[in-house]
Amino acid sequence: MRLAVIGGLAAGPAAAAEAARQNPAADVVLFEQTAHVSVGACEIPYYVADRLGGRRDLIALTPDELARTRGLTVHVRHRVTALDAARGRLTVEALDHGATREERFDRFILATGARPRRLGVEGEDAAGVFAVRGYDDAVAVRRWVEVEPVRHAVVVGGGYVGAEMAEAFRDRGLQVTVLEPQGRLLAGALDEALGQPLAARARARGVRVRPERPTRLLTAPDGRVRAVVTDRGERIGCQVVLVAIGVEPNVDLARGAGVRIGDSGAVATDAQMRTSARAVWACGDCAEVTRVVDGRRLHWPLAPATRQTARVAARNAARDARHGGAAPPATFQGVTGAVGVRVFGIEAAAVGLREHEAAEAGFDALAVQVQHVSRTRVYPGAKPLWVRLVVEAGTGRLLGGQLVGEEGAALRADVLVPLVRAGISARVLAEDIDLIYNPPLAPATDPLRVAAAAAMRACGQRRPRA
Amino acid sequence: MRLAVIGGLAAGPAAAAEAARQNPAADVVLFEQTAHVSVGACEIPYYVADRLGGRRDLIALTPDELARTRGLTVHVRHRVTALDAARGRLTVEALDHGATREERFDRFILATGARPRRLGVEGEDAAGVFAVRGYDDAVAVRRWVEVEPVRHAVVVGGGYVGAEMAEAFRDRGLQVTVLEPQGRLLAGALDEALGQPLAARARARGVRVRPERPTRLLTAPDGRVRAVVTDRGERIGCQVVLVAIGVEPNVDLARGAGVRIGDSGAVATDAQMRTSARAVWACGDCAEVTRVVDGRRLHWPLAPATRQTARVAARNAARDARHGGAAPPATFQGVTGAVGVRVFGIEAAAVGLREHEAAEAGFDALAVQVQHVSRTRVYPGAKPLWVRLVVEAGTGRLLGGQLVGEEGAALRADVLVPLVRAGISARVLAEDIDLIYNPPLAPATDPLRVAAAAAMRACGQRRPRA
Repeated sequence: MRLAVIGGLAAGPAAAAEAARQNPAADVVLFEQTAHVSVGACEIPYYVADRLGGRRDLIALTPDELARTRGLTVHVRHRVTALDAARGRLTVEALDHGATREERFDRFILATGARPRRLGVEGEDAAGVFAVRGYDDAVAVRRWVEVEPVRHAVVVGGGYVGAEMAEAFRDRGLQVTVLEPQGRLLAGALDEALGQPLAARARARGVRVRPERPTRLLTAPDGRVRAVVTDRGERIGCQVVLVAIGVEPNVDLARGAGVRIGDSGAVATDAQMRTSARAVWACGDCAEVTRVVDGRRLHWPLAPATRQTARVAARNAARDARHGGAAPPATFQGVTGAVGVRVFGIEAAAVGLREHEAAEAGFDALAVQVQHVSRTRVYPGAKPLWVRLVVEAGTGRLLGGQLVGEEGAALRADVLVPLVRAGISARVLAEDIDLIYNPPLAPATDPLRVAAAAAMRACGQRRPRA
Repeated sequence: MRLAVIGGLAAGPAAAAEAARQNPAADVVLFEQTAHVSVGACEIPYYVADRLGGRRDLIALTPDELARTRGLTVHVRHRVTALDAARGRLTVEALDHGATREERFDRFILATGARPRRLGVEGEDAAGVFAVRGYDDAVAVRRWVEVEPVRHAVVVGGGYVGAEMAEAFRDRGLQVTVLEPQGRLLAGALDEALGQPLAARARARGVRVRPERPTRLLTAPDGRVRAVVTDRGERIGCQVVLVAIGVEPNVDLARGAGVRIGDSGAVATDAQMRTSARAVWACGDCAEVTRVVDGRRLHWPLAPATRQTARVAARNAARDARHGGAAPPATFQGVTGAVGVRVFGIEAAAVGLREHEAAEAGFDALAVQVQHVSRTRVYPGAKPLWVRLVVEAGTGRLLGGQLVGEEGAALRADVLVPLVRAGISARVLAEDIDLIYNPPLAPATDPLRVAAAAAMRACGQRRPRA
């Protein structure tokens, strides 16, 4: 059996390795259009900030290492330009010599990933305007801030990547302005009431967040960016612009192959990560996934889902009717939607649904927020910790949570993951679950349980009105 | 309705406050034989180490504050010497004037707590020999090391309290020897393979752990302790001895009242925290609880169970047949058995069953252990993290886990609590649960999931033999 994996950034290598492990008799071939595979996109801000050992730290395995240790054939600098699933054919362009060839495969895994959204404004292609997604982007933006006389950076977008890159630029000694229409960092993940601690820290570190959008980028005669013009008519001089307004799935190949695209814009898949085309699976940032809390299909381009969907797609694609036919297919249950970040000394994490998402999903939801401490209050180093929980009003079912604080926020959000996933009531968290208590580690009643108790009280108050 | 709560250290105040909240018409009276209520026993080592603000930090509420803010009557320095449940009578001795009186109550909550186990050797009552349980102990031991010419401390017992007190004495500049028959710290909570990182740190901090037991304490002519003689015939000179070999429930009052004592030695209770006597409930460190993983009844004198059982006992004891009769009684589901500590810069935590406990409970269990990292490996400050999981061989069901590392161990153990509690398979943790990934917070595949995957592989290897 010949199995083609298309895309080598993150999901592709994971899928190819899993396929080879599952079916050692299969001939697994990975195609990647850049020169690198197994790139740690999440590490890029720290590379730019010069907090890693060097650029080699962005790469888990070289193409040779991946091929040798996983028993694969790896073709880098090869672009797959067409997929004909019915005929079992790929059209592949070898970028180094420009030659195009056709190759025959029995099965295909799409791992074409996602690409940064573009601003769609004049001047966007000026020198000094970057997005960070792959290895080459990372090296380019770091070289730019090291070699060019950069004093002021504009980051467009205040989400996770925008916030991390703003911090990275501050670490490099630059002035930093973030343009974010909502006027605050992580507005897409945290409710406004939780945003304050992070906003205060970012401000203290000298980062300005402006509630504006870029409408035009001005360019110097030599082609370098020199200013951003905003929708308020402001002109912000700068020598580097980082665009971080999200990503969109790379579905051109899938679309060309007649593979169905979901409402989210990503490749439609079932729980086995099969696409609409026979013998074609999809995984990683190009594929749609289910959010378990409400069953919604969405594009969720984060590393945990990447690895999970890669594993499922690979196991099913590599199943040999003769040997693996008896075992049930692997399935992907979906994401809880857990995200976390640490910027400007603040951990921020979110799990499941926010209040407005819960309402959109048809839940009669309410949110409560508590401020507590990361350790016993009297213990040195105890830090404020904010917990916000979203619950179903009638049942107390945990739908989501957000945590913010200097320490202990992200791992406590992890505690919520299995609870939100299983649809457990806040009552169980408040009353039954015996989380660890020890003065240097947690207060006597953990902040999660304090918030859960507050949620149950709020549910009780709501009930008479229902 | 008059409700008596007997014992005011931890469970008692929680129960009394909850009872008054549930039934504002009830007359709730708390009796405590010492002069203090609401004492934070877990904070004592940090008070001795002079890491808190002062002794006031050991006390959440004074007797007056407790009475005023919770709507209670609080009698400190009052010892309850007899309970006659059938007649609804307590015999109470007012310690400050020696007078004994009888009081009538409708309902009773036993919150008599636990007391330190004694060594049972000659010299145990010498000056300079301490256990730490209550406020007076804490003040006494700290004064001793501050006022006396203490150079060398012997800590008998290497469990949580022994380890914390060893660290506290080191913080005070003392030489410290721990006597622990198993020759290592936290042997009661961590399997030997996990003990090494902590042992190395303790050794580096100058703490000697000796696999010996004390057989005699030698006393100077002035009554002060001057040496410990061990079962190997060694004589260890010292000026302070701290005995931390566990606690035993205070059940004398219960026994005298004819209340049934369980096999664990603590007061037998049902899920509503009722005792065998009508109108008598029990909670906190004097009461038996169920371990949810295997249903075993045990004495589990830790703060989370204290608060949970206090709440349940109080809600049920305070239920008024007229008003609360319709609502179902509160129940306590039992403990998962989650414990954590941070000593010598190492976090150590355990949840559920250890391998030998699982075997004792009749499970065909296996254990796996992995070494991973607390953050992405390339991120600065990533620390080794050890995870050991105990699973049922046939099903992969998570029975318990232990984590050790400089950071991120205890809160990750909290993630295991709901999983162990619900009897979830390690497969779900390995494959389905999307824990947060972000370089400063966790590696791409969380250590918990790496361990869970290893557990599933071990289950797969075991299966053919079954």
